Amino acid sequence: MIVDCAVYKEGRRVPGTFTPGAALRKSRADDAFVWIGLHEPTRDEFEEVRREFDLHELAVEDAIKAHQRPKLESYDDSVLLVLKPARYVDSEEVVELGEILIFLGSGFIVVVRHGDTGGLQDARRALEARPEFLALGPSAVLHAIVDYVVDDYRPVMEGLEQDVDQVEEAVFSSERTNPTERIYYLKREVIEFRRATAPLLNPLNHLASRTTPHVNEDVQEYFRDVYDHLLRVNEQVEGFRDLLTSVLEANLTQVSVRQNEDMRKISAWVAIAVVPTMIAGIYGMNFEYMPELQSTFGYPAVLGFMALACSALYIFFRRRDWL
Amino acid sequence: MIVDCAVYKEGRRVPGTFTPGAALRKSRADDAFVWIGLHEPTRDEFEEVRREFDLHELAVEDAIKAHQRPKLESYDDSVLLVLKPARYVDSEEVVELGEILIFLGSGFIVVVRHGDTGGLQDARRALEARPEFLALGPSAVLHAIVDYVVDDYRPVMEGLEQDVDQVEEAVFSSERTNPTERIYYLKREVIEFRRATAPLLNPLNHLASRTTPHVNEDVQEYFRDVYDHLLRVNEQVEGFRDLLTSVLEANLTQVSVRQNEDMRKISAWVAIAVVPTMIAGIYGMNFEYMPELQSTFGYPAVLGFMALACSALYIFFRRRDWL
Amino acid sequence: MIVDCAVYKEGRRVPGTFTPGAALRKSRADDAFVWIGLHEPTRDEFEEVRREFDLHELAVEDAIKAHQRPKLESYDDSVLLVLKPARYVDSEEVVELGEILIFLGSGFIVVVRHGDTGGLQDARRALEARPEFLALGPSAVLHAIVDYVVDDYRPVMEGLEQDVDQVEEAVFSSERTNPTERIYYLKREVIEFRRATAPLLNPLNHLASRTTPHVNEDVQEYFRDVYDHLLRVNEQVEGFRDLLTSVLEANLTQVSVRQNEDMRKISAWVAIAVVPTMIAGIYGMNFEYMPELQSTFGYPAVLGFMALACSALYIFFRRRDWL
Amino acid sequence: MIVDCAVYKEGRRVPGTFTPGAALRKSRADDAFVWIGLHEPTRDEFEEVRREFDLHELAVEDAIKAHQRPKLESYDDSVLLVLKPARYVDSEEVVELGEILIFLGSGFIVVVRHGDTGGLQDARRALEARPEFLALGPSAVLHAIVDYVVDDYRPVMEGLEQDVDQVEEAVFSSERTNPTERIYYLKREVIEFRRATAPLLNPLNHLASRTTPHVNEDVQEYFRDVYDHLLRVNEQVEGFRDLLTSVLEANLTQVSVRQNEDMRKISAWVAIAVVPTMIAGIYGMNFEYMPELQSTFGYPAVLGFMALACSALYIFFRRRDWL
Amino acid sequence: MIVDCAVYKEGRRVPGTFTPGAALRKSRADDAFVWIGLHEPTRDEFEEVRREFDLHELAVEDAIKAHQRPKLESYDDSVLLVLKPARYVDSEEVVELGEILIFLGSGFIVVVRHGDTGGLQDARRALEARPEFLALGPSAVLHAIVDYVVDDYRPVMEGLEQDVDQVEEAVFSSERTNPTERIYYLKREVIEFRRATAPLLNPLNHLASRTTPHVNEDVQEYFRDVYDHLLRVNEQVEGFRDLLTSVLEANLTQVSVRQNEDMRKISAWVAIAVVPTMIAGIYGMNFEYMPELQSTFGYPAVLGFMALACSALYIFFRRRDWL
Repeated sequence: MIVDCAVYKEGRRVPGTFTPGAALRKSRADDAFVWIGLHEPTRDEFEEVRREFDLHELAVEDAIKAHQRPKLESYDDSVLLVLKPARYVDSEEVVELGEILIFLGSGFIVVVRHGDTGGLQDARRALEARPEFLALGPSAVLHAIVDYVVDDYRPVMEGLEQDVDQVEEAVFSSERTNPTERIYYLKREVIEFRRATAPLLNPLNHLASRTTPHVNEDVQEYFRDVYDHLLRVNEQVEGFRDLLTSVLEANLTQVSVRQNEDMRKISAWVAIAVVPTMIAGIYGMNFEYMPELQSTFGYPAVLGFMALACSALYIFFRRRDWL
Repeated sequence: MIVDCAVYKEGRRVPGTFTPGAALRKSRADDAFVWIGLHEPTRDEFEEVRREFDLHELAVEDAIKAHQRPKLESYDDSVLLVLKPARYVDSEEVVELGEILIFLGSGFIVVVRHGDTGGLQDARRALEARPEFLALGPSAVLHAIVDYVVDDYRPVMEGLEQDVDQVEEAVFSSERTNPTERIYYLKREVIEFRRATAPLLNPLNHLASRTTPHVNEDVQEYFRDVYDHLLRVNEQVEGFRDLLTSVLEANLTQVSVRQNEDMRKISAWVAIAVVPTMIAGIYGMNFEYMPELQSTFGYPAVLGFMALACSALYIFFRRRDWL
Repeated sequence: MIVDCAVYKEGRRVPGTFTPGAALRKSRADDAFVWIGLHEPTRDEFEEVRREFDLHELAVEDAIKAHQRPKLESYDDSVLLVLKPARYVDSEEVVELGEILIFLGSGFIVVVRHGDTGGLQDARRALEARPEFLALGPSAVLHAIVDYVVDDYRPVMEGLEQDVDQVEEAVFSSERTNPTERIYYLKREVIEFRRATAPLLNPLNHLASRTTPHVNEDVQEYFRDVYDHLLRVNEQVEGFRDLLTSVLEANLTQVSVRQNEDMRKISAWVAIAVVPTMIAGIYGMNFEYMPELQSTFGYPAVLGFMALACSALYIFFRRRDWL
Repeated sequence: MIVDCAVYKEGRRVPGTFTPGAALRKSRADDAFVWIGLHEPTRDEFEEVRREFDLHELAVEDAIKAHQRPKLESYDDSVLLVLKPARYVDSEEVVELGEILIFLGSGFIVVVRHGDTGGLQDARRALEARPEFLALGPSAVLHAIVDYVVDDYRPVMEGLEQDVDQVEEAVFSSERTNPTERIYYLKREVIEFRRATAPLLNPLNHLASRTTPHVNEDVQEYFRDVYDHLLRVNEQVEGFRDLLTSVLEANLTQVSVRQNEDMRKISAWVAIAVVPTMIAGIYGMNFEYMPELQSTFGYPAVLGFMALACSALYIFFRRRDWL
Repeated sequence: MIVDCAVYKEGRRVPGTFTPGAALRKSRADDAFVWIGLHEPTRDEFEEVRREFDLHELAVEDAIKAHQRPKLESYDDSVLLVLKPARYVDSEEVVELGEILIFLGSGFIVVVRHGDTGGLQDARRALEARPEFLALGPSAVLHAIVDYVVDDYRPVMEGLEQDVDQVEEAVFSSERTNPTERIYYLKREVIEFRRATAPLLNPLNHLASRTTPHVNEDVQEYFRDVYDHLLRVNEQVEGFRDLLTSVLEANLTQVSVRQNEDMRKISAWVAIAVVPTMIAGIYGMNFEYMPELQSTFGYPAVLGFMALACSALYIFFRRRDWL
């Protein structure tokens, strides 16, 4: 589906709606550029765009199927950048990844989006509000989209950070929870999210530090900032992985400590109950000659002794922190 | 065994069956190229081909024994690419690796296949259906085979992914299973599979980004796509390894939690039973003066007290989640 | 907030207070340089400084928000160095990171500080006491601040080292403590602190070994020492991480050993108490013909035997180190 | 001890026995080359050889003491390659490493062997059977020896693989074995063996891909094959290390599962026995008014109830898989 | 403290004692060189030497405080090498690190030693016995000291190796020891020792493979040997680290196995004792009609049955390896 197809001249949108072909001809004539946004295009839709803008044949499969890694590729007449926008679904503690393919050429930028990670309308509107920057050409659009996507990693990071904090709390709380499953799946999401951010480092570094075809030199400087932001995101993701590995190990210790405590307490109570049982057993023996049995105060004395022994044991266990 | 020996001219198969020698002469005369496919050739079979196409002496051992790592090697007159096709045997959860050696020279491509991972007839048929691509020469065949083999890694990945999912489920299910053995052998298979994919990255990167002798420049561009695909496969394999390591650790926690729970429950029941035993022991003592024993309601009162104590303990253990 | 804005000529402070603009004009006229220190400036405060010194537009966001990694960046007319000063709050065992941004240009140095990790007044005073060094220009100030910040990592290291020592002691002490939580959070702080030191290595290496715009050659040599110091800090931080990982594992063993000892002792006592109970049970049977029961010395003999059996068990358990 | 000292001309051995000096003079006169093999030479023996062939002074210590890492070093007039041949002693599950130093110069090759890992007579005989290859000069001998040593790593790999398989079986068998010690020492051997193979990679890569003084260009190509073989060996060694680490962890789970099962079974039996004890205790109380005691069928009824309760518990525990 | 200050001419010591200044003048006049050794000099002592030999100002702090990493630095007129000699204190299982700073310039070598790891008199004496080598100038002294220090790492390695062996023995012995603490602190020492050896690799590699100012070319070749030695030391240190990590894990398994065995044995004995208690309880019931009680042989029969049941249980537990 073609979401939007606009012509920009000197940083301002040319009024009217265009087909891709008409937009291209208009832009050629006016020294302007075209910005087309597509969402999960069908083969035919994309094929039409491809032919108009003379994109590489191999691009068709990529643009329709959407199972790419983040990458930057140079073709003869255009440059392809693949991005993975991310969204954090807090209710399921799951990171959802989408895919954005950007074809940048002389006088045009084609943006293909896959998945439900939110549209780029906001980015377009924000950019249209800065005509002096938009006047730098299609690479200004490229920067705006990359910046928008990388900025959108922040809520994901915050969601993950919050979950890591909750998991830590659960591990070290005195409640008898076992957050192993949650830790594991959280780690899995972090590894998943890393697939969006880590492979993007090289392409962004390239955009920020070396001249790339079709990328305006004035825009290049702005990519340094985005690259820096991505570096920070990536560092934090690595930190989460490291922390979750440690938390998994700490959890093993905590769980085994708590369970052992339970067992120890039960065993200690059994040990206390065993003592009066033993004493009672002795005075339950049927010997004919057992002088204590005849004594009037034998029974209360034994009961008292039992209570004493149990209390002594209880205090002893308490002191040793066994109860 | 020679599986197929064909001459291709301008992208189309020249009718007729040829011996390797005849095919070579035919191709030389017609500006065509030869594509020979062998399956586990005997020393003599391969020696004949080797002499006709003037392959390097060292190649004989490699082509017959088949214990190579994936690699790309340049000889004087030809290039050798070694691939490891893979197949997933779901019933045994085992990854089977085969081996394909491709000798690419000026006007010929010799493909030697080992193992039972499926023939290349499909790749040949698909390629013959695209004569315009096949017309680019033997390196088009090279691309077709590499693409076919790397595409075939996908079902292996899916098989492994499914097993990883099952293993995760088993670890975190409430059933008392111990999937340690399965996790371990799965990890072993992942490490095994990595031996096919990881060492292929460098050769494919070379084919995709630098000019290689006997490889058509138009074909080179197509290798970028295959390389990209392999990168994704490799990334996922690394992810599996990482996950299985974490799962093994999570499993230790889960197993120990479950077993401890069992022990705790048994001990708690013993602790409950110990209390009436203790009380009964007391009233089983043979003291002459024990006033409760004469009371008519002594017995039911004690029975009631026992029931009460046991119930209280039961509720207490329940609340503490010990039962 | 502008903390201080001074003009330095030939290593000595020019008397009087200046606005940024006045300072710049003064310094231009006198062949001197300006050193401005800001603390958490508002957008307007910084914007004014930025315009006066012609800093890059992108710098505004960075200077106000302060969520940068340590880095060195070259702009057209200036160089930006980002530092992360650190402070150790011993009471909470937490490493607090601040942020310092230094813009170095021809004839000026602008220092923006964020966070509460302590001001740079000491660094300014110390530097003003060395006019011959200060006479080397703004890069001498750069060196002084970097040196000051890296020197300030030492108390953090000492704080962490002390905590690591305490944690080791707790792990291997005979007291029944469980320092898992403390180990984990300490490791977390070490990882946090590493975010300040590790990314600074490359910028400092660059300052020490290659010519940087606006950095005096005589000053460059002094950066080698700071770089070396940072290398040592970083090595030690890595060492802490390694140690804490091992301590976490050792702690699991120690905790499980200690808990098992408790369980073993309780069980051993129960086992000792079970023996007289069993014997008493036997002589509590109601058989008509039990010759021992008639014997006058039956009762004391059995009591003696019980005491003997218990003592024997006790000695046996003691020898086996079970008690 | 000088094992053999021979002169080779045009690929064939010149008849007769020579002293090192005579051999060198003979070879210089005839345009032939000398191949000397020494086994653990004394200082005097080696010193004589050294002087004749003008080897570097530092070589003496190396050649006599034999505690070198695999390496390739260029001196003024010769090249030194150090190899570590390996042998697997299956009875003790130990990898024994020897040491071979090869001095290669213009017209001579001196081979010094240390340790008991098997002589090089087989390599010499095999090479003498290929005069056309031997005619390529002393570097052909170098290749033959390196090839022989690397080929000899195969039985070591097979021995280790077999042990890894046995260890895996032991870990996952239902027998109550504890293979921890064996796993650990196996891992130790793998690390030990790696000291022979890993540092050899760089020297072999150098021999295979760059021109080395005194190494014939035609021979260089043959080193590619040996390098490839070594790469495979090294990859497998790394795989073993990885597997043994996982096996050690899996073993911890398995061992704790098995031991817990034992404990659970014993506890379950105790729990079953506690029930009739409790019931018996109740009817052992001495209350005057206990109506059941007068009943004729009281005793068998209680016995039956006991049996019933025990059976019910047994079935319950069985169902829960606690027995 | 100035330990020794000597002038060497043509490899021989010039008789007499000199102050640093006199020695320098003497050496300048005679084309000789000065070798000064200092041990923990005061600021004034070193300042005097520094001025005489025109060393860099920054060197003063380094030479007095001594908290440097091993490194090689080039100043204008001199080269600085920092070494960390090591000593193993077996009684405390501690590696003690010292520090040696060597300033090498044209015609002089200044050696500053810190710590108690043994003086360099032996190195001086050994070198004076080789006048032909000493004649190569101050870099010969540099080599001698570096060689001496690296040679001195050997006893440390041997001490650590012995401790690792003892720890392994303790882990796998059948005695109930818990060597966790010892393993941990040993690992700590290994990490500590690595701080002396690992950062020295680069400087030594530089000295061995590239020309360094003030280092004689003939001496350079000798550094290859020292570098090689250090490589071996470093490899072994890494091996220790790896082994100790595995030992720590194996120890967890061994400790938990041993403790579980103890618990299992105690529980098994309790289980055996519970059976006669249960039987005795049954015959202790007060039912009026219990035919066995009247039988003359009831008592011995029951006793026999008890013995039989216990024996059967004992044999059963023995067979299952529970006792």
